[in-house]
Amino acid sequence: MEFSALLTSVGINIGICVVLFSLYSILRKQPSNITVYFGRKIASRKLKHCETFCFDRFVPSPSWIVKAWETTEEEILALDGLDSVVFLRIIIFSIRVFSIAAITCLFLVLPVNYYGQETTHKLIPSESLDVFSIENIKENSKWLCAHCIALYVICCSACVLLYFEYLSISRMRLIYITGAQMNPTYFTVLVRSIPWSPDESYSETVRKFFTNYHESGYLSHQMIYRSGTVQKLLSDAEKMYNMMKENSVEMHCQKFKGGCFCAGPTNSFAILPSVNDSVTDKNLYGDMDMLAGEKECSAAFVFFKTRYAALMAATALQSANPMSWATDLAPAPHDVYWSNLSIPYRQLWIRKIGTLVAATAFMLVFLLPVTLVQSMTQLEQLQQAFPFLKGLLKKKYMSELVTGYLPSVILILFMYLVPPTMMSFSALEGSISRSGRKRSACLKVLYFTIWNVFFVNVFTGSILRTLNVFFSVKDIPATFGKAVPAQASFFLTYVLSSGWASLSCEVMQLFPLTCNLIRRWILRIKSEPLFETLSFPYHTEVPRILLFGFLGFTCCILAPLITPFLLFYFFLAYLVYKNQILNVYVSKYESGGQFWPIAHNTTIFAMVVAQIIALGVFGLKESPVASGFTIPLIIGTLLFHEYCRQRFGPIFKNTAAEVLIEMDRKDEQCGRLEEMYKKLRTAYCQFTLLAKRDTSTSGCSSNHNNENSIIDTESAKPGKPLEVHGLWNPPFHLDDMGDLGVPTLTNK
Amino acid sequence: MEFSALLTSVGINIGICVVLFSLYSILRKQPSNITVYFGRKIASRKLKHCETFCFDRFVPSPSWIVKAWETTEEEILALDGLDSVVFLRIIIFSIRVFSIAAITCLFLVLPVNYYGQETTHKLIPSESLDVFSIENIKENSKWLCAHCIALYVICCSACVLLYFEYLSISRMRLIYITGAQMNPTYFTVLVRSIPWSPDESYSETVRKFFTNYHESGYLSHQMIYRSGTVQKLLSDAEKMYNMMKENSVEMHCQKFKGGCFCAGPTNSFAILPSVNDSVTDKNLYGDMDMLAGEKECSAAFVFFKTRYAALMAATALQSANPMSWATDLAPAPHDVYWSNLSIPYRQLWIRKIGTLVAATAFMLVFLLPVTLVQSMTQLEQLQQAFPFLKGLLKKKYMSELVTGYLPSVILILFMYLVPPTMMSFSALEGSISRSGRKRSACLKVLYFTIWNVFFVNVFTGSILRTLNVFFSVKDIPATFGKAVPAQASFFLTYVLSSGWASLSCEVMQLFPLTCNLIRRWILRIKSEPLFETLSFPYHTEVPRILLFGFLGFTCCILAPLITPFLLFYFFLAYLVYKNQILNVYVSKYESGGQFWPIAHNTTIFAMVVAQIIALGVFGLKESPVASGFTIPLIIGTLLFHEYCRQRFGPIFKNTAAEVLIEMDRKDEQCGRLEEMYKKLRTAYCQFTLLAKRDTSTSGCSSNHNNENSIIDTESAKPGKPLEVHGLWNPPFHLDDMGDLGVPTLTNK
Repeated sequence: MEFSALLTSVGINIGICVVLFSLYSILRKQPSNITVYFGRKIASRKLKHCETFCFDRFVPSPSWIVKAWETTEEEILALDGLDSVVFLRIIIFSIRVFSIAAITCLFLVLPVNYYGQETTHKLIPSESLDVFSIENIKENSKWLCAHCIALYVICCSACVLLYFEYLSISRMRLIYITGAQMNPTYFTVLVRSIPWSPDESYSETVRKFFTNYHESGYLSHQMIYRSGTVQKLLSDAEKMYNMMKENSVEMHCQKFKGGCFCAGPTNSFAILPSVNDSVTDKNLYGDMDMLAGEKECSAAFVFFKTRYAALMAATALQSANPMSWATDLAPAPHDVYWSNLSIPYRQLWIRKIGTLVAATAFMLVFLLPVTLVQSMTQLEQLQQAFPFLKGLLKKKYMSELVTGYLPSVILILFMYLVPPTMMSFSALEGSISRSGRKRSACLKVLYFTIWNVFFVNVFTGSILRTLNVFFSVKDIPATFGKAVPAQASFFLTYVLSSGWASLSCEVMQLFPLTCNLIRRWILRIKSEPLFETLSFPYHTEVPRILLFGFLGFTCCILAPLITPFLLFYFFLAYLVYKNQILNVYVSKYESGGQFWPIAHNTTIFAMVVAQIIALGVFGLKESPVASGFTIPLIIGTLLFHEYCRQRFGPIFKNTAAEVLIEMDRKDEQCGRLEEMYKKLRTAYCQFTLLAKRDTSTSGCSSNHNNENSIIDTESAKPGKPLEVHGLWNPPFHLDDMGDLGVPTLTNK
Repeated sequence: MEFSALLTSVGINIGICVVLFSLYSILRKQPSNITVYFGRKIASRKLKHCETFCFDRFVPSPSWIVKAWETTEEEILALDGLDSVVFLRIIIFSIRVFSIAAITCLFLVLPVNYYGQETTHKLIPSESLDVFSIENIKENSKWLCAHCIALYVICCSACVLLYFEYLSISRMRLIYITGAQMNPTYFTVLVRSIPWSPDESYSETVRKFFTNYHESGYLSHQMIYRSGTVQKLLSDAEKMYNMMKENSVEMHCQKFKGGCFCAGPTNSFAILPSVNDSVTDKNLYGDMDMLAGEKECSAAFVFFKTRYAALMAATALQSANPMSWATDLAPAPHDVYWSNLSIPYRQLWIRKIGTLVAATAFMLVFLLPVTLVQSMTQLEQLQQAFPFLKGLLKKKYMSELVTGYLPSVILILFMYLVPPTMMSFSALEGSISRSGRKRSACLKVLYFTIWNVFFVNVFTGSILRTLNVFFSVKDIPATFGKAVPAQASFFLTYVLSSGWASLSCEVMQLFPLTCNLIRRWILRIKSEPLFETLSFPYHTEVPRILLFGFLGFTCCILAPLITPFLLFYFFLAYLVYKNQILNVYVSKYESGGQFWPIAHNTTIFAMVVAQIIALGVFGLKESPVASGFTIPLIIGTLLFHEYCRQRFGPIFKNTAAEVLIEMDRKDEQCGRLEEMYKKLRTAYCQFTLLAKRDTSTSGCSSNHNNENSIIDTESAKPGKPLEVHGLWNPPFHLDDMGDLGVPTLTNK
């Protein structure tokens, strides 16, 4: 690939980005797209609008960039919780590392590469990209030490940055835990695999066991039921509710045709709660008499009087048979993945193995399209396969387009299939929490992406060839050293096309936008759609960011030209994702920073792979000094990883007793415990419409405002209509949507 | 190798065994060898003797075999604790499995192998051993299904047996835990990495932390001191004590020249305790004022009021910084490895990595002598290297001796170097208990043995060739399939020579016997040596037994002739080790059955290796049906392993809360707790001669009789001579040493 082809690709991509971002800044001002671009504001009832015409609406403006740039980390933390901050921290870390890498590579490695052979250089645009890569260095050259030094600089600075990030994120996690004073999670233990007794119900067994062995700490418990007829009844009722609501919204809209005040999906009519009273009310009471006919599972939530007692019950081995009385700290109420709780505990290990095998198989079968994509980068092969394309491909710009852009686009399209598949694997695995499921899916997508984008592409698309490389262990460095530099220019274009384009797509929200357009202009449905806010897709975005970090680490020494494009990508990502967190996504559950260890481990892995590649390249270039110095770097990196695992690992697995005891004490001093106990009784509702409505509509019930989102037990007495608290009803104000150019109104 | 050579080898080995066992049965009757063969009885004061002449003493008798056979498991459990029972269970499991394997292989596989080729058979003695192995089967033969069926039978029966053994041993472990009511272990937590504060001592920090966070459970604590001047002073004092004691014993003996009553190393003079009073007495008091000048370590034993409280403190993450306040359940007092407690906790992870690397390096360097040994099995090479041997080696019996016996002997001699090296690696690793150190050494020796005896021999002695095999992963089955059957006859002779001979050596106790002989007949020292009982060398014997199991699993299908020799080995081992446990070794500490998981995992590993080899062989013999059926067997075995890990693994890592709470309750009902608290204060003594004397002399202080071996606190007041309890003083009786033929007397 020539430098000019690269410039073409850069030009095309910058053009596309500018067009799409401008389009976004226009589209977001259209009132009809408000559900697409301002999910968070709708969910928090900060925003209603009227369709008045205004010229400003059709002029692109960069105000959203300014807004995203100005928002501080504290604001993000308050707004969307720890996970989004951790996500932004991953991007910031990448920016920092690749700034250092860019300086080192562009000023040290690039000149060395360029003057590596004693040839007369052509004009830069017509130079091959290989001239800028490590392939231009002569064998046995002394200048390879420059690469070794650059590798040292990059890896050492990455380790230092990683350490301080880990330290600061573990502190933030601590603050997150201590800040969530009223979070029922820490009082609750999920008990599974309760032994069956012919004489008594599971509930009775649980009560006896915990009053016997945890008398001082035990408060009460709540059984988990198999989702059977009651569940079906409730879901039918919900469907009916939705239908009726939609009609009522339409009626509502017709009344106020001029200004269309949409009252949102709550409080609009009081008839439904009373219809469902007989079911939901009883559910709200701990004992659930009505459900006695329903089948109990061998699982229960057990509530404890103090956080420390719950922690102790959750961490200790309860029974001499480890397959019964399995305990875990319960997830937060909104985070519970109910349908998995009824899975027998004894099945879990086999399910885990099964999904592992299935996910690996999926990873391997997926290679067919990737092979196709890879073959497209070779023009000759394409011309042979489709002779009629010969004339077309002879045109220069077409060949540049094909080699520089098309392959990546096809790859991206296929990649969209992966996250939902991995998500369903993770659900099958038996995760008890939705955040756990997402985290597990994130890991699977990450392995998948790195394997399929990096390793398979490096070994030019053949699964067997790639697997063979890993089967002959001692040849790995040499094989990598040969294959990776040859593919470095592909990864360069991948960053350009896939990276930048994915950000444009992310900000445009193509799928919801299309749905919205079809709904409005083709189906001609004028009413507001049944609105469901999106939660941040960590399982697709974390792997994507980490993949580009991985490509950066592995390629920056070999092809230093990649660094400026990567830096641009991360800058853009920082702005785009911040904007999305501010406007679109709403966290429905928190993992408490659990994504950082994934990012940390991936970065270490990327560094080690980069070092192994460097070892291979130095070996091939016959530079014993450089390869000799690379080995201690690998050892050092692995030791650093082990140290971090020892130092920080446990913090992300368990909560320190010290911290929980302090929280318990504070509660006792404030006299908040009684209030907490009352709340605990209704915190976990398996069969309530209200619980569902609460999560889907109030949405923003991250752990920081769980106080608000719990259903009031006082008003939940039979015969009295239920009230849902926790829906933010801020006073009327013009909010920070100034750049919309339309007057904004809140619905109160 | 011919069948007749094998018979020669069998003959030689049986002869040697018979001679050595007869010699043993004579030697053990000699009063001068009593310290060599009856360590346990001396330690428990059951046995003193006089040298009267008797003809019976010089006639070999099998009475020890009868005695060993008749002893039941319950007796062994009562006498020597759980570990020795688990050890015997490993042998019994091997006997059971290889009985099934022997029947299957001799009646199914052996005939199939023998009639595998359509050749006329020679007379059996002059047949090559290859005729009996799988190499005799034709390619593409239908009879390979017989091997596949045999493999299924062996693996399935092994899995069933393993499951029930694991179940029964985990039950025994439970009984062991609940039986040790007065064991201070469960009340004590070892805290390491106490954060340093400039204002107060470590002791004060510990007190504050635990009174603050574990107020309800905390009882007291005891600091650990760096072994400095006080330690030196005490060891000097001990040397002096030993010297003086030896003199006093000699004086004693001279008095009773005719009958020589040896009073043993206790109570012989009361002067030493009073000399040491000022040091030891104060140590026995919790606060250790005198040692304030000595440097405190950042480690302490913290005592709790209940076992449950201690367990909770030990399992929970104490601090938000996982590198400080690291807690573990303390080992039993006699099991504490004091010198490792002062290692800074932050060093541990790097020490572990360091010893891992060192042990691996040792494993690889060790290969040189093994290569030499292996080359000796090839007569031609030996003749080339040493031309002068040509004439000698041409003689038939010499060549048979060399090929069948010599290599193994040399290997064994080299192998004696390994356990002490691995033991010192395990000590460096930072293990807090002596049993933990032994367990870790056991694992290292096991890896070492399997690697060096099996894998390196299979690939004929070249480390690089062997490593290469593992580096090219996908060729492993084929390489194994080719190499292992070729070496099967070597392993057959290895079982014969190394296996049977090692048992003879074990029963003869060659090293202590030689020392004793030198002492008595060359140095002419008549007095009793300073006696130290041996503790059972699990770290050498468990790997040995497991190695032969490993060889059995991997070779029984390929060379069915190995099974009868293995069975004979295990039968002999059962008798020999039972005898040694009854007479020689004394458990000074217990791991509570921790050796079983090692045995379980090794057996699973052996089965998987056997299956992979079978897969390779079936592949080479072009039998797709047999290799097709082997794959589900591998998957099944791995799933079984995972299930066992889930089902039994946690029991051997943690103690169930349920169990400890029940024990606490029982104590409370009996009112034993106050007594326990008193004992706790003096249970862990870092700087006392008495503690040392207690372990080395009373010896048999396994956890079952810890009640006796604790120093009485009432009598430990200053000015009063100390009394050591816990030395068994049974009434006079003729004990079970009838076959000695001499009247036995106890010293009271």
